[in-house]
Amino acid sequence: MRGAIVGASGYSGAELTRLLAGHQKVSELEIFSNSLAGEMFDEHYPNMAGEVGLRYQKVPEGITLRGYDVVFLATPAGAAMSLVRDIGLDGPSIIDLSADFRYLDYGLYKFWYGKDHLFQNEENKFIYGLTELNREALRGARLVSNPGCYPTSILLALVPLLRDEAIIEKEVISDAKSGVSGAGRKLQEEYLFYRCNENIVPYRPIRHSHIGEMEHQTYNLTGQDIRLSFTPHLVPLNRGILSTIYCRLSKDKDVAEVEERYSRSYGEEPFVQVLQSGRIPNIRDVVGSNNCRIGYIYDERAGILKIFSSLDNLLKGAAGQAVQNMNVMFGFPETEGLPRQALG
Amino acid sequence: MRGAIVGASGYSGAELTRLLAGHQKVSELEIFSNSLAGEMFDEHYPNMAGEVGLRYQKVPEGITLRGYDVVFLATPAGAAMSLVRDIGLDGPSIIDLSADFRYLDYGLYKFWYGKDHLFQNEENKFIYGLTELNREALRGARLVSNPGCYPTSILLALVPLLRDEAIIEKEVISDAKSGVSGAGRKLQEEYLFYRCNENIVPYRPIRHSHIGEMEHQTYNLTGQDIRLSFTPHLVPLNRGILSTIYCRLSKDKDVAEVEERYSRSYGEEPFVQVLQSGRIPNIRDVVGSNNCRIGYIYDERAGILKIFSSLDNLLKGAAGQAVQNMNVMFGFPETEGLPRQALG
Amino acid sequence: MRGAIVGASGYSGAELTRLLAGHQKVSELEIFSNSLAGEMFDEHYPNMAGEVGLRYQKVPEGITLRGYDVVFLATPAGAAMSLVRDIGLDGPSIIDLSADFRYLDYGLYKFWYGKDHLFQNEENKFIYGLTELNREALRGARLVSNPGCYPTSILLALVPLLRDEAIIEKEVISDAKSGVSGAGRKLQEEYLFYRCNENIVPYRPIRHSHIGEMEHQTYNLTGQDIRLSFTPHLVPLNRGILSTIYCRLSKDKDVAEVEERYSRSYGEEPFVQVLQSGRIPNIRDVVGSNNCRIGYIYDERAGILKIFSSLDNLLKGAAGQAVQNMNVMFGFPETEGLPRQALG
Amino acid sequence: MRGAIVGASGYSGAELTRLLAGHQKVSELEIFSNSLAGEMFDEHYPNMAGEVGLRYQKVPEGITLRGYDVVFLATPAGAAMSLVRDIGLDGPSIIDLSADFRYLDYGLYKFWYGKDHLFQNEENKFIYGLTELNREALRGARLVSNPGCYPTSILLALVPLLRDEAIIEKEVISDAKSGVSGAGRKLQEEYLFYRCNENIVPYRPIRHSHIGEMEHQTYNLTGQDIRLSFTPHLVPLNRGILSTIYCRLSKDKDVAEVEERYSRSYGEEPFVQVLQSGRIPNIRDVVGSNNCRIGYIYDERAGILKIFSSLDNLLKGAAGQAVQNMNVMFGFPETEGLPRQALG
Repeated sequence: MRGAIVGASGYSGAELTRLLAGHQKVSELEIFSNSLAGEMFDEHYPNMAGEVGLRYQKVPEGITLRGYDVVFLATPAGAAMSLVRDIGLDGPSIIDLSADFRYLDYGLYKFWYGKDHLFQNEENKFIYGLTELNREALRGARLVSNPGCYPTSILLALVPLLRDEAIIEKEVISDAKSGVSGAGRKLQEEYLFYRCNENIVPYRPIRHSHIGEMEHQTYNLTGQDIRLSFTPHLVPLNRGILSTIYCRLSKDKDVAEVEERYSRSYGEEPFVQVLQSGRIPNIRDVVGSNNCRIGYIYDERAGILKIFSSLDNLLKGAAGQAVQNMNVMFGFPETEGLPRQALG
Repeated sequence: MRGAIVGASGYSGAELTRLLAGHQKVSELEIFSNSLAGEMFDEHYPNMAGEVGLRYQKVPEGITLRGYDVVFLATPAGAAMSLVRDIGLDGPSIIDLSADFRYLDYGLYKFWYGKDHLFQNEENKFIYGLTELNREALRGARLVSNPGCYPTSILLALVPLLRDEAIIEKEVISDAKSGVSGAGRKLQEEYLFYRCNENIVPYRPIRHSHIGEMEHQTYNLTGQDIRLSFTPHLVPLNRGILSTIYCRLSKDKDVAEVEERYSRSYGEEPFVQVLQSGRIPNIRDVVGSNNCRIGYIYDERAGILKIFSSLDNLLKGAAGQAVQNMNVMFGFPETEGLPRQALG
Repeated sequence: MRGAIVGASGYSGAELTRLLAGHQKVSELEIFSNSLAGEMFDEHYPNMAGEVGLRYQKVPEGITLRGYDVVFLATPAGAAMSLVRDIGLDGPSIIDLSADFRYLDYGLYKFWYGKDHLFQNEENKFIYGLTELNREALRGARLVSNPGCYPTSILLALVPLLRDEAIIEKEVISDAKSGVSGAGRKLQEEYLFYRCNENIVPYRPIRHSHIGEMEHQTYNLTGQDIRLSFTPHLVPLNRGILSTIYCRLSKDKDVAEVEERYSRSYGEEPFVQVLQSGRIPNIRDVVGSNNCRIGYIYDERAGILKIFSSLDNLLKGAAGQAVQNMNVMFGFPETEGLPRQALG
Repeated sequence: MRGAIVGASGYSGAELTRLLAGHQKVSELEIFSNSLAGEMFDEHYPNMAGEVGLRYQKVPEGITLRGYDVVFLATPAGAAMSLVRDIGLDGPSIIDLSADFRYLDYGLYKFWYGKDHLFQNEENKFIYGLTELNREALRGARLVSNPGCYPTSILLALVPLLRDEAIIEKEVISDAKSGVSGAGRKLQEEYLFYRCNENIVPYRPIRHSHIGEMEHQTYNLTGQDIRLSFTPHLVPLNRGILSTIYCRLSKDKDVAEVEERYSRSYGEEPFVQVLQSGRIPNIRDVVGSNNCRIGYIYDERAGILKIFSSLDNLLKGAAGQAVQNMNVMFGFPETEGLPRQALG
């Protein structure tokens, strides 16, 4: 199979390159980036030296990209929709890692991203690639929108509790902590080592665009309208997200049902591990793997269910889930090319 | 003035030693620790080399401790009450940095600490040393109980909104993040560098003993019964706490009143800075100083008031506030001996 | 093949467990640790949760250990020789990760480790497992002594320049920097997060026991007697060693010969990468892989050849090289079970 | 006294602002930066919020700068000489933190910085401000060139061993490790958190411009021509330099003379502490203070004297020493306004 990655200069695109270079089913891989065109991949990502002998190429015309079996878009928000317009919806399989096709409702897209969507007069045909919770729709799909890193961690924790009959109330608070790779390669002072290190920085405490994605996709996946108050914090580590989620059990519901719901949703899943009630995951347990680990505990005094969800933002939160989606779309073994062990 | 520090081997006790060694009004200082007796302070804390020529002494009898003007207790929970028993309540001024005298109600003490209080048949005469919010009671006091690090950060943020008439509802969630010095010098695997680094570890997600202190002292300081759901997280940095607090405004209240309340409480305070609505503090802004910085923003969509409170856990969260309390108790200038600039 | 790991509680033993659990040729694996006997491996190393369903067992009698095809000893210095005595030299293949069999001359062992060797009246039959430089001797060997982490990084850099005719002079200085996992799980205050973080700590600036290993094995591998001045520094990161090496070219030798020597030694090696003259490796390029990356530059003004050698101390510096040695000993593909990509 | 800081936007300039804002003798302070003109200092350095109510101003004409008693130049290499030209040598006292006046020989300046010096036809009248070793020349001086961060740490260690009769040989190797604040606020990918963290990066292993400064000033201060091979490494911490220095004792000299030399040079110094032979300083001991701590040990086996010198690169390595120089120049108490305790 021939694969292309457009936007392979950033951290997610580079992680995707790393994973696909070792994937049994991808016999040919090409990587594109206008900013790094002509340079060798491993000059910029020497951790892959000797393993990935690829050179960045200038992003080609849509017609050229039609020649691949699968095209991954790891471009900034706004760029993917133009590329998709150029490639056409009837060409190769497309897996978009940006936010451009995460909304079925383009009015919401405009509200959260502040710009009109190029496709606003057409139906969004992309399937939301939260693999474990949307697998049937992904099988055989050709157009997939890969979820955001925070939404992956939070929706994997919440959706099983809301699907069918909700067992939690709809006012949800999530306090999330992310490593600095989540900010990408942006050359801004706030991401310099000296600013991030020995610090914790809450940011965008209202109107982070992932909020819209989470509320919207929760509705799409469960039929439930939640109201999410979300606060991300930048913490001084390279990789990993820990989302701490606060909600209340619905009347007459009990923490045993939480276990039952998770067990039903994830009992057989290779990449989602739910701990016993009272056991709490941490970030080191997942970094380097495509896993999401979830723990929970019921604070009976305060009537609050606390859920902790951790993943590697560059793997399950981005490139890893994109590969997992590719595996499902093409009928490959779902774990192919994906690390299951954290580095520790 | 003659000062003594009992339990000067731990990080809070050492920080107190550092501060008092440079304090204009403390002409004599002695430090006590059974585990380090006979050793030089600056062997263990070489950052003070040349500045503090003190040697640890074995903890003396209560009668000996009566000879000081002020005795600081930086001992583990449970040890302070025995020492206070030995010293007697009619001796020197005592500032206890442990939790032993933070409860007026010893039944609560037992609930949260799991043991009977030695003084359970007597009234607790210690004044709760949350300086800015209890200053009048501290003036001239001889027995002071210094607040916990998390409670200082959270109560400074909450109490002004609850005093007189509450402008927030009583269900409060706090997600707190602390640097590893908060764990003290405990030789446990979970505090080894390799375990903490590149990690975030939620711990004691229910029943952390600071919850009781916060609910109890909120009641004492405001007459309001709040219900607090508190979750601390260990983050890979040396010093600093950032507490993120989630609550709801009371009916008919509005975020402008938050500003008004904070301004009234802290407008003249040297060590508490409240930012304009929408500005968010971070940890680097306060580490190395005795300051607490508070920011807030109202998430109108979700109806949640988010408050961010940051301080240096060893300074305003422990030793700094202890010295500030001493200054108030003895009528010294309140900022004497206390750093006002963060290191940056 | 049946494998056993004795001393699987420490970081090297756990890394070995992680690698062997995924190794195609090791169908059965058992792990032993007296301190953790009865506990599940993934309770202590949750990064492997779901991947390694092993329980620690009490370290068995030598006779029992004879029942395995290969026994790895990841025990502290001094313990391995007793275990080897009990197992016998005619039993299973043994790969010792400790220092116990790194000296052919037990007098040197005593000098550097301060104790008599149990086997001092017998010849040391263990082959020194610096794979790339001793491969022929390792093929088919049954007793292998795995090199130390610092020696691996330094000898891989030095030996090619000394073998056959030396092209460098014999006075060598190495200033090495290691992540804190190198210290193992020792519960000592100096390895607490608060002590290591934001710090650099030179330690054992004379008489570090790896010096003896390096001088002795350089002699064994090259016939040259070097004089090494070695200074390790603890740096605040989890994994990785960077050894900076200072030496002088022999008279009439020239930096082009350095390239030629390295190319001859490592041109075909999967795990050793030598960069072009003037390119400098760093730690992130290798952590998570079994690679060693070497760079060099000639400081003509000062007449000093600077060599930089980096590896992951738990992989190429310990468990990874042990598995690589097993692969060579048993004739398996040398890269089997070993990560070639760094995490980045 | 009226002070001005030109180039107060960078980390050294900001540190200088922090120190001078609290200095008893500087009654008026103004700060200049073209890039931040019009903005408040504490927006960019909120650690000083409430303490420094200054606004950045556009850099004024030289004639305006003549109106101050002391002008600090914290501008990039090359900018200071133009400013000095504009201000004139007969105006206010000038303390230049850049490299522009660190060479008496402008040919050397050109060699190391690659450009002609504006003043090449005039004698360099700036005094080299390595305070402890050049104090007499600094008293009453009006033009002072502040040393680089690495040179301060290394020259304080070396000069006492070379002055009068050298007790060490002239071939010296220094392997230095610096926190990331040493790179300043440069927006380059290599200084992003994700690139620095969990990494050690050797850089400019030949021809770092501080080499020239060190050899040249060693000659000026001691009459000895040393040959220095210097290799800096970027390490993941905010502040601090540890320089490890390798040299050989001169024939017939002995390590006791090292102690004697240091004791004679620094016995009475407030900011330089020399530890007993065998005791090794680390970075945490000095960060936050204006101190330099030096330790040494003689490696008899290899015949190498190892010296370890640590300081806070923004304090003793830059802004702190600048203030110390001002104190000496103006006859103020030398420790005024300078922190003597490390934060720990």
